[in-house]
Amino acid sequence: MQPDRSPFFLTLFCATILLAAPVRAQPAGSELISGCIPCHGADGISKFGEVPNLAGQNAPYLLNQLRAFHTGRRQHKEMRFMSRNLTEEEMETIAAYFSSLPPR
Amino acid sequence: MQPDRSPFFLTLFCATILLAAPVRAQPAGSELISGCIPCHGADGISKFGEVPNLAGQNAPYLLNQLRAFHTGRRQHKEMRFMSRNLTEEEMETIAAYFSSLPPR
Repeated sequence: MQPDRSPFFLTLFCATILLAAPVRAQPAGSELISGCIPCHGADGISKFGEVPNLAGQNAPYLLNQLRAFHTGRRQHKEMRFMSRNLTEEEMETIAAYFSSLPPR
Repeated sequence: MQPDRSPFFLTLFCATILLAAPVRAQPAGSELISGCIPCHGADGISKFGEVPNLAGQNAPYLLNQLRAFHTGRRQHKEMRFMSRNLTEEEMETIAAYFSSLPPR
């Protein structure tokens, strides 16, 4: 007769849920935007007048601008640097992330 | 003895107020933004995903971008055309106008 492993698996299941919850609670893209936060704010509301708010902005526009910074088509030293290693998929994720935030 | 001109001036004053009211009721810049409306919306909320919402955007950022389109520093065919004849004061007015609108 096999030993009853139910309590072990139940504990493992609960621990997994508890440990995974904080990760799942973060919206997609939050791990990518750490570099964006100092200028654009974690909530997409800029603390600097010359820096645009991104919260609630149209995602296709944001993606297009990210691509333009990435390739140098839109010239901006800091944004070129920040976007230099982003993949297309990561830019899509970042654009969708800021677009999903409530505007100020 | 001078004729009493009070009724005339009172009528003139009232007529001026009544005629001026509809003009004053429009926020500053509304006469300038007629060219912006088709793409950016009268309320600063774009109907096109690839066009940015301007409502509630930071005025210094908007002004900086208008200047960049005007000079060609930020390359955008349509925006270069739309901004070609704007004065610095008009660009300031437009930036302040869209910034003052409530975001979506």
